[in-house]
Amino acid sequence: MENREISQAVVSRLPRYYRYLGDIKDQGIERISSAELSRIMRVTASQIRQDFNHFGGFGQQGYGYNVEYLHEEIGKILGLDRDHRLVLVGAGNLGSALINYMNFKNRGFFFQAAFDANEELHGRTLGGIKVYPMDELVSFIENNDIEIVVLAIPRTAAVKVAEMVSGTGISAIWNFAHIDLQVPDRIQVENVHLSDSLMRLTYSIRRYEEKNAQK
Amino acid sequence: MENREISQAVVSRLPRYYRYLGDIKDQGIERISSAELSRIMRVTASQIRQDFNHFGGFGQQGYGYNVEYLHEEIGKILGLDRDHRLVLVGAGNLGSALINYMNFKNRGFFFQAAFDANEELHGRTLGGIKVYPMDELVSFIENNDIEIVVLAIPRTAAVKVAEMVSGTGISAIWNFAHIDLQVPDRIQVENVHLSDSLMRLTYSIRRYEEKNAQK
Repeated sequence: MENREISQAVVSRLPRYYRYLGDIKDQGIERISSAELSRIMRVTASQIRQDFNHFGGFGQQGYGYNVEYLHEEIGKILGLDRDHRLVLVGAGNLGSALINYMNFKNRGFFFQAAFDANEELHGRTLGGIKVYPMDELVSFIENNDIEIVVLAIPRTAAVKVAEMVSGTGISAIWNFAHIDLQVPDRIQVENVHLSDSLMRLTYSIRRYEEKNAQK
Repeated sequence: MENREISQAVVSRLPRYYRYLGDIKDQGIERISSAELSRIMRVTASQIRQDFNHFGGFGQQGYGYNVEYLHEEIGKILGLDRDHRLVLVGAGNLGSALINYMNFKNRGFFFQAAFDANEELHGRTLGGIKVYPMDELVSFIENNDIEIVVLAIPRTAAVKVAEMVSGTGISAIWNFAHIDLQVPDRIQVENVHLSDSLMRLTYSIRRYEEKNAQK
Protein backbone atom coordinates (compact mmCIF):
# COMPACT_ATOMS: atom_id res chain seq x y z
CA MET A 1 0.00 0.00 0.00
CA GLU A 2 1.20 3.50 -0.83
CA ASN A 3 2.06 5.92 1.93
CA ARG A 4 1.97 9.16 -0.02
CA GLU A 5 -0.43 11.86 1.13
CA ILE A 6 -3.82 11.21 -0.48
CA SER A 7 -6.09 14.14 -1.26
CA GLN A 8 -9.04 14.80 1.03
CA ALA A 9 -11.43 14.37 -1.90
CA VAL A 10 -10.24 10.83 -2.58
CA VAL A 11 -10.37 9.95 1.12
CA SER A 12 -13.90 11.28 1.46
CA ARG A 13 -15.02 8.90 -1.31
CA LEU A 14 -13.52 5.76 0.27
CA PRO A 15 -16.33 5.09 2.79
CA ARG A 16 -18.85 5.14 -0.06
CA TYR A 17 -16.79 2.58 -2.04
CA TYR A 18 -16.58 0.49 1.12
CA ARG A 19 -20.34 0.66 1.65
CA TYR A 20 -21.19 -0.30 -1.94
CA LEU A 21 -18.60 -3.08 -2.09
CA GLY A 22 -20.00 -4.53 1.16
CA ASP A 23 -23.47 -4.64 -0.45
CA ILE A 24 -22.11 -6.19 -3.65
CA LYS A 25 -20.21 -8.79 -1.63
CA ASP A 26 -23.37 -9.58 0.37
CA GLN A 27 -25.14 -10.29 -2.93
CA GLY A 28 -22.59 -13.03 -3.58
CA ILE A 29 -20.88 -11.24 -6.47
CA GLU A 30 -17.19 -12.21 -6.63
CA ARG A 31 -15.75 -10.02 -9.39
CA ILE A 32 -16.79 -6.61 -10.71
CA SER A 33 -15.49 -4.41 -13.52
CA SER A 34 -14.93 -0.68 -13.05
CA ALA A 35 -17.66 -0.15 -15.69
CA GLU A 36 -20.18 -2.14 -13.66
CA LEU A 37 -19.15 -0.47 -10.38
CA SER A 38 -19.44 2.87 -12.18
CA ARG A 39 -23.02 2.08 -13.21
CA ILE A 40 -24.07 1.04 -9.70
CA MET A 41 -22.35 3.94 -7.92
CA ARG A 42 -23.15 6.59 -10.54
CA VAL A 43 -19.58 7.83 -10.82
CA THR A 44 -17.41 7.53 -13.94
CA ALA A 45 -15.26 4.43 -14.41
CA SER A 46 -12.23 6.66 -14.92
CA GLN A 47 -12.88 8.32 -11.54
CA ILE A 48 -12.95 4.88 -9.92
CA ARG A 49 -9.70 3.81 -11.61
CA GLN A 50 -8.02 7.10 -10.68
CA ASP A 51 -9.14 6.80 -7.04
CA PHE A 52 -7.95 3.20 -6.80
CA ASN A 53 -4.62 4.04 -8.43
CA HIS A 54 -3.76 6.11 -5.35
CA PHE A 55 -3.63 2.81 -3.48
CA GLY A 56 -1.82 0.73 -6.09
CA GLY A 57 -4.86 -0.10 -8.23
CA PHE A 58 -6.20 -3.18 -6.39
CA GLY A 59 -5.64 -5.68 -9.20
CA GLN A 60 -6.05 -5.98 -12.94
CA GLN A 61 -8.80 -4.08 -14.68
CA GLY A 62 -9.13 -6.50 -17.60
CA TYR A 63 -10.41 -9.23 -15.30
CA GLY A 64 -12.36 -6.85 -13.06
CA TYR A 65 -11.77 -6.45 -9.35
CA ASN A 66 -12.03 -9.22 -6.78
CA VAL A 67 -14.90 -7.81 -4.66
CA GLU A 68 -13.94 -9.40 -1.35
CA TYR A 69 -10.27 -8.41 -1.69
CA LEU A 70 -11.16 -4.85 -2.73
CA HIS A 71 -13.63 -4.47 0.15
CA GLU A 72 -11.08 -5.78 2.63
CA GLU A 73 -8.23 -3.59 1.31
CA ILE A 74 -10.33 -0.42 1.41
CA GLY A 75 -11.39 -1.44 4.93
CA LYS A 76 -7.71 -1.64 5.92
CA ILE A 77 -7.02 1.81 4.47
CA LEU A 78 -9.98 3.12 6.49
CA GLY A 79 -8.58 1.59 9.67
CA LEU A 80 -11.43 -0.92 9.93
CA ASP A 81 -9.17 -3.97 10.23
CA ARG A 82 -8.98 -3.60 14.00
CA ASP A 83 -11.38 -2.88 16.85
CA HIS A 84 -12.02 0.60 18.20
CA ARG A 85 -12.97 1.37 21.80
CA LEU A 86 -15.28 4.34 22.31
CA VAL A 87 -16.97 6.26 25.06
CA LEU A 88 -20.09 8.35 24.58
CA VAL A 89 -20.43 11.73 26.26
CA GLY A 90 -24.09 12.80 26.35
CA ALA A 91 -26.69 10.10 27.00
CA GLY A 92 -29.63 12.02 25.50
CA ASN A 93 -31.61 11.17 22.37
CA LEU A 94 -28.72 11.66 19.98
CA GLY A 95 -26.35 9.60 22.13
CA SER A 96 -28.98 6.86 22.46
CA ALA A 97 -29.47 6.93 18.71
CA LEU A 98 -25.74 6.52 18.15
CA ILE A 99 -25.58 3.51 20.46
CA ASN A 100 -28.85 1.82 19.47
CA TYR A 101 -29.71 2.80 15.94
CA MET A 102 -26.32 2.52 14.27
CA ASN A 103 -24.97 -0.91 13.73
CA PHE A 104 -21.44 -0.08 14.78
CA LYS A 105 -20.46 -3.44 16.19
CA ASN A 106 -20.44 -4.92 12.70
CA ARG A 107 -17.47 -2.73 11.92
CA GLY A 108 -15.50 -3.15 15.12
CA PHE A 109 -16.73 -0.13 17.09
CA PHE A 110 -17.35 -0.92 20.76
CA PHE A 111 -18.81 1.57 23.19
CA GLN A 112 -17.35 0.93 26.66
CA ALA A 113 -19.32 3.47 28.69
CA ALA A 114 -21.50 6.57 28.48
CA PHE A 115 -21.17 9.76 30.54
CA ASP A 116 -23.74 12.41 31.31
CA ALA A 117 -24.07 15.44 33.58
CA ASN A 118 -27.66 14.45 34.44
CA GLU A 119 -27.59 12.57 37.78
CA GLU A 120 -30.88 10.81 37.00
CA LEU A 121 -29.17 8.86 34.23
CA HIS A 122 -26.25 7.60 36.32
CA GLY A 123 -26.29 3.83 36.75
CA ARG A 124 -28.84 3.35 33.95
CA THR A 125 -27.94 1.56 30.74
CA LEU A 126 -28.31 2.62 27.11
CA GLY A 127 -28.34 -0.33 24.73
CA GLY A 128 -26.35 -2.31 27.29
CA ILE A 129 -23.89 0.55 27.98
CA LYS A 130 -23.75 1.95 31.52
CA VAL A 131 -24.03 5.71 32.16
CA TYR A 132 -21.47 7.28 34.55
CA PRO A 133 -21.02 10.77 36.06
CA MET A 134 -18.88 13.24 34.08
CA ASP A 135 -16.18 13.40 36.76
CA GLU A 136 -15.31 9.77 36.08
CA LEU A 137 -14.69 10.38 32.37
CA VAL A 138 -10.94 11.08 32.41
CA SER A 139 -10.01 8.20 34.72
CA PHE A 140 -12.25 5.81 32.76
CA ILE A 141 -10.50 6.79 29.51
CA GLU A 142 -7.09 6.25 31.09
CA ASN A 143 -7.96 2.92 32.70
CA ASN A 144 -9.82 1.41 29.75
CA ASP A 145 -7.62 2.16 26.76
CA ILE A 146 -10.25 4.36 25.08
CA GLU A 147 -9.40 5.52 21.58
CA ILE A 148 -12.41 7.61 20.49
CA VAL A 149 -14.59 10.03 22.47
CA VAL A 150 -18.03 10.71 20.95
CA LEU A 151 -19.45 14.11 21.89
CA ALA A 152 -23.25 14.23 21.68
CA ILE A 153 -23.67 17.31 23.87
CA PRO A 154 -24.32 21.04 23.35
CA ARG A 155 -21.49 23.28 22.21
CA THR A 156 -20.48 24.97 25.48
CA ALA A 157 -20.27 21.58 27.21
CA ALA A 158 -18.34 20.17 24.22
CA VAL A 159 -15.62 22.80 24.53
CA LYS A 160 -15.10 21.92 28.22
CA VAL A 161 -15.10 18.16 27.62
CA ALA A 162 -12.66 18.51 24.72
CA GLU A 163 -10.30 20.34 27.11
CA MET A 164 -10.77 17.64 29.77
CA VAL A 165 -9.91 14.77 27.42
CA SER A 166 -7.08 16.57 25.59
CA GLY A 167 -4.60 15.44 28.25
CA THR A 168 -5.53 11.76 27.94
CA GLY A 169 -4.20 9.23 25.45
CA ILE A 170 -7.22 9.27 23.12
CA SER A 171 -6.63 9.34 19.37
CA ALA A 172 -9.83 11.02 18.22
CA ILE A 173 -13.04 12.91 18.91
CA TRP A 174 -16.21 12.33 16.91
CA ASN A 175 -17.95 15.65 17.48
CA PHE A 176 -21.68 16.31 17.06
CA ALA A 177 -21.63 19.70 18.81
CA HIS A 178 -22.02 22.71 16.50
CA ILE A 179 -18.60 24.10 17.19
CA ASP A 180 -15.08 23.51 15.90
CA LEU A 181 -12.99 22.13 18.76
CA GLN A 182 -9.41 23.15 19.55
CA VAL A 183 -7.38 20.08 20.49
CA PRO A 184 -3.72 18.99 20.16
CA ASP A 185 -2.68 17.82 16.65
CA ARG A 186 -2.33 14.22 17.82
CA ILE A 187 -6.11 14.09 18.41
CA GLN A 188 -8.06 13.70 15.16
CA VAL A 189 -11.45 15.41 15.03
CA GLU A 190 -14.33 14.50 12.73
CA ASN A 191 -17.28 16.85 12.92
CA VAL A 192 -20.90 16.01 12.17
CA HIS A 193 -22.44 19.47 12.05
CA LEU A 194 -26.08 18.63 11.33
CA SER A 195 -27.12 22.25 10.89
CA ASP A 196 -24.38 22.72 8.27
CA SER A 197 -25.81 19.74 6.41
CA LEU A 198 -29.31 21.18 6.58
CA MET A 199 -28.03 24.50 5.21
CA ARG A 200 -26.40 22.74 2.26
CA LEU A 201 -29.82 21.23 1.61
CA THR A 202 -31.66 24.57 1.65
CA TYR A 203 -28.90 25.98 -0.59
CA SER A 204 -29.60 23.20 -3.11
CA ILE A 205 -33.34 23.92 -2.97
CA ARG A 206 -32.76 27.63 -3.59
CA ARG A 207 -30.31 26.94 -6.46
CA TYR A 208 -32.75 24.55 -8.14
CA GLU A 209 -35.58 27.08 -7.89
CA GLU A 210 -33.37 29.84 -9.30
CA LYS A 211 -32.26 27.71 -12.24
CA ASN A 212 -35.86 26.83 -13.04
CA ALA A 213 -36.97 30.46 -12.77
CA GLN A 214 -34.35 31.37 -15.41
CA LYS A 215 -35.66 28.85 -17.92
CA MET B 1 -26.00 38.42 -6.12
CA GLU B 2 -24.30 36.32 -8.78
CA ASN B 3 -26.14 33.47 -10.41
CA ARG B 4 -23.20 31.60 -11.91
CA GLU B 5 -22.64 27.99 -10.85
CA ILE B 6 -20.58 28.00 -7.67
CA SER B 7 -18.23 25.10 -6.96
CA GLN B 8 -19.31 22.49 -4.42
CA ALA B 9 -16.24 23.26 -2.31
CA VAL B 10 -17.21 26.92 -1.89
CA VAL B 11 -20.82 25.98 -1.10
CA SER B 12 -19.74 23.45 1.51
CA ARG B 13 -17.84 26.22 3.33
CA LEU B 14 -20.78 28.66 3.47
CA PRO B 15 -22.57 27.08 6.48
CA ARG B 16 -19.37 27.37 8.50
CA TYR B 17 -19.04 31.07 7.62
CA TYR B 18 -22.70 31.51 8.58
CA ARG B 19 -22.15 29.77 11.92
CA TYR B 20 -19.07 31.83 12.83
CA LEU B 21 -20.60 35.12 11.71
CA GLY B 22 -23.67 34.37 13.84
CA ASP B 23 -21.41 33.91 16.87
CA ILE B 24 -19.45 37.08 16.09
CA LYS B 25 -22.69 39.02 15.69
CA ASP B 26 -23.95 37.65 19.02
CA GLN B 27 -20.79 39.03 20.65
CA GLY B 28 -21.85 42.51 19.51
CA ILE B 29 -19.04 42.90 16.97
CA GLU B 30 -20.18 45.11 14.07
CA ARG B 31 -17.27 45.03 11.63
CA ILE B 32 -14.60 42.43 10.97
CA SER B 33 -11.60 42.31 8.63
CA SER B 34 -10.83 39.25 6.54
CA ALA B 35 -7.58 38.98 8.56
CA GLU B 36 -9.49 38.80 11.84
CA LEU B 37 -12.08 36.38 10.44
CA SER B 38 -9.18 34.31 9.09
CA ARG B 39 -7.63 34.10 12.56
CA ILE B 40 -10.89 33.04 14.23
CA MET B 41 -11.88 30.51 11.55
CA ARG B 42 -8.37 29.18 10.92
CA VAL B 43 -8.55 29.58 7.15
CA THR B 44 -6.40 31.98 5.11
CA ALA B 45 -7.65 35.52 4.50
CA SER B 46 -7.15 34.99 0.77
CA GLN B 47 -9.41 31.93 0.90
CA ILE B 48 -12.11 34.04 2.58
CA ARG B 49 -11.80 36.83 0.00
CA GLN B 50 -11.86 34.31 -2.87
CA ASP B 51 -14.94 32.58 -1.46
CA PHE B 52 -16.77 35.87 -0.94
CA ASN B 53 -15.86 37.10 -4.43
CA HIS B 54 -18.09 34.36 -5.87
CA PHE B 55 -20.98 36.30 -4.39
CA GLY B 56 -19.87 39.81 -5.31
CA GLY B 57 -17.47 40.32 -2.38
CA PHE B 58 -19.93 41.58 0.30
CA GLY B 59 -18.44 45.05 0.68
CA GLN B 60 -15.06 46.79 0.89
CA GLN B 61 -12.14 44.97 2.39
CA GLY B 62 -10.31 48.11 3.54
CA TYR B 63 -13.02 48.90 6.07
CA GLY B 64 -13.71 45.27 6.93
CA TYR B 65 -17.04 43.54 6.51
CA ASN B 66 -20.29 44.60 8.14
CA VAL B 67 -20.94 41.49 10.25
CA GLU B 68 -24.73 41.68 10.34
CA TYR B 69 -24.99 42.35 6.59
CA LEU B 70 -22.54 39.57 5.75
CA HIS B 71 -24.36 37.10 8.03
CA GLU B 72 -27.71 38.01 6.48
CA GLU B 73 -26.45 37.83 2.89
CA ILE B 74 -24.87 34.41 3.40
CA GLY B 75 -28.12 33.34 5.06
CA LYS B 76 -30.00 34.41 1.93
CA ILE B 77 -27.63 32.44 -0.31
CA LEU B 78 -28.22 29.41 1.92
CA GLY B 79 -31.99 29.79 1.58
CA LEU B 80 -32.40 30.71 5.26
CA ASP B 81 -34.35 33.91 4.57
CA ARG B 82 -37.65 32.04 4.52
CA ASP B 83 -39.35 29.34 6.58
CA HIS B 84 -39.12 25.65 5.74
CA ARG B 85 -41.83 23.10 6.56
CA LEU B 86 -40.62 19.59 7.38
CA VAL B 87 -41.96 16.18 8.28
CA LEU B 88 -39.99 13.55 10.12
CA VAL B 89 -40.18 9.91 9.08
CA GLY B 90 -38.94 7.67 11.90
CA ALA B 91 -39.84 8.65 15.46
CA GLY B 92 -37.07 6.65 17.14
CA ASN B 93 -34.06 7.99 19.04
CA LEU B 94 -32.48 9.67 16.06
CA GLY B 95 -35.75 11.32 15.00
CA SER B 96 -36.37 12.47 18.57
CA ALA B 97 -32.86 13.86 18.70
CA LEU B 98 -33.44 15.79 15.49
CA ILE B 99 -36.65 17.32 16.84
CA ASN B 100 -35.54 17.96 20.42
CA TYR B 101 -31.81 18.38 20.48
CA MET B 102 -31.29 20.54 17.41
CA ASN B 103 -32.41 24.10 17.65
CA PHE B 104 -33.94 24.23 14.20
CA LYS B 105 -36.66 26.76 14.91
CA ASN B 106 -34.05 29.49 15.26
CA ARG B 107 -33.31 29.14 11.59
CA GLY B 108 -36.84 28.82 10.27
CA PHE B 109 -37.20 25.03 10.21
CA PHE B 110 -40.62 23.86 11.40
CA PHE B 111 -41.54 20.20 11.83
CA GLN B 112 -45.26 19.75 11.05
CA ALA B 113 -45.65 16.05 11.86
CA ALA B 114 -43.78 12.80 12.46
CA PHE B 115 -44.55 9.38 10.94
CA ASP B 116 -43.62 5.95 12.14
CA ALA B 117 -44.48 2.34 11.29
CA ASN B 118 -44.70 1.48 15.01
CA GLU B 119 -48.37 1.60 16.04
CA GLU B 120 -47.49 2.20 19.69
CA LEU B 121 -46.14 5.62 18.79
CA HIS B 122 -49.23 6.81 16.89
CA GLY B 123 -50.96 9.71 18.59
CA ARG B 124 -47.97 10.38 20.86
CA THR B 125 -45.97 13.60 20.59
CA LEU B 126 -42.23 14.17 20.17
CA GLY B 127 -41.16 17.63 21.30
CA GLY B 128 -44.68 18.87 20.59
CA ILE B 129 -44.89 17.10 17.20
CA LYS B 130 -47.60 14.45 16.74
CA VAL B 131 -46.74 10.98 15.39
CA TYR B 132 -48.97 9.57 12.60
CA PRO B 133 -49.16 6.20 10.78
CA MET B 134 -47.04 5.82 7.64
CA ASP B 135 -50.07 5.47 5.35
CA GLU B 136 -51.01 9.09 6.10
CA LEU B 137 -47.61 10.43 4.99
CA VAL B 138 -48.34 11.20 1.33
CA SER B 139 -51.69 12.89 1.93
CA PHE B 140 -50.22 14.90 4.82
CA ILE B 141 -47.41 16.17 2.58
CA GLU B 142 -49.88 17.14 -0.13
CA ASN B 143 -52.32 18.87 2.22
CA ASN B 144 -49.75 20.73 4.32
CA ASP B 145 -47.35 22.21 1.79
CA ILE B 146 -44.39 20.18 3.07
CA GLU B 147 -41.04 21.06 1.54
CA ILE B 148 -38.54 18.73 3.24
CA VAL B 149 -38.88 15.08 4.30
CA VAL B 150 -36.40 13.93 6.95
CA LEU B 151 -35.65 10.21 6.82
CA ALA B 152 -34.46 8.83 10.17
CA ILE B 153 -35.19 5.19 9.36
CA PRO B 154 -33.19 2.11 8.29
CA ARG B 155 -32.08 1.78 4.67
CA THR B 156 -34.65 -0.67 3.30
CA ALA B 157 -37.50 1.44 4.72
CA ALA B 158 -35.82 4.61 3.37
CA VAL B 159 -35.82 3.28 -0.20
CA LYS B 160 -39.57 2.59 0.02
CA VAL B 161 -40.42 5.95 1.60
CA ALA B 162 -38.30 7.80 -0.97
CA GLU B 163 -40.37 6.11 -3.68
CA MET B 164 -43.62 7.00 -1.89
CA VAL B 165 -42.79 10.71 -1.60
CA SER B 166 -41.20 11.04 -5.06
CA GLY B 167 -44.62 11.72 -6.58
CA THR B 168 -45.46 14.55 -4.17
CA GLY B 169 -44.47 18.20 -4.47
CA ILE B 170 -41.61 18.08 -1.94
CA SER B 171 -38.36 19.88 -2.78
CA ALA B 172 -35.92 17.86 -0.74
CA ILE B 173 -35.04 14.83 1.37
CA TRP B 174 -32.65 15.01 4.31
CA ASN B 175 -31.51 11.41 4.46
CA PHE B 176 -29.96 9.70 7.49
CA ALA B 177 -30.30 6.15 6.10
CA HIS B 178 -27.05 4.53 4.96
CA ILE B 179 -28.03 4.33 1.35
CA ASP B 180 -27.96 6.67 -1.65
CA LEU B 181 -31.56 7.31 -2.71
CA GLN B 182 -32.82 7.40 -6.30
CA VAL B 183 -35.29 10.27 -6.71
CA PRO B 184 -36.30 12.66 -9.55
CA ASP B 185 -33.85 15.51 -10.24
CA ARG B 186 -36.29 18.10 -8.90
CA ILE B 187 -35.91 16.58 -5.40
CA GLN B 188 -32.65 17.61 -3.73
CA VAL B 189 -31.05 15.03 -1.44
CA GLU B 190 -28.59 15.74 1.35
CA ASN B 191 -27.16 12.64 3.00
CA VAL B 192 -25.87 12.35 6.54
CA HIS B 193 -24.12 9.00 6.40
CA LEU B 194 -22.87 8.68 9.98
CA SER B 195 -20.90 5.51 9.32
CA ASP B 196 -19.06 7.26 6.45
CA SER B 197 -18.12 10.02 8.88
CA LEU B 198 -16.86 7.48 11.41
CA MET B 199 -14.76 5.81 8.70
CA ARG B 200 -13.16 9.13 7.80
CA LEU B 201 -12.25 9.42 11.47
CA THR B 202 -10.63 5.98 11.66
CA TYR B 203 -8.80 6.79 8.40
CA SER B 204 -7.36 9.93 10.05
CA ILE B 205 -6.28 7.92 13.09
CA ARG B 206 -4.53 5.33 10.92
CA ARG B 207 -2.83 8.03 8.79
CA TYR B 208 -1.58 9.85 11.88
CA GLU B 209 -0.17 6.64 13.35
CA GLU B 210 1.55 5.76 10.05
CA LYS B 211 3.13 9.19 9.76
CA ASN B 212 4.44 8.97 13.31
CA ALA B 213 5.79 5.48 12.75
CA GLN B 214 7.82 6.80 9.77
CA LYS B 215 9.52 9.50 11.87
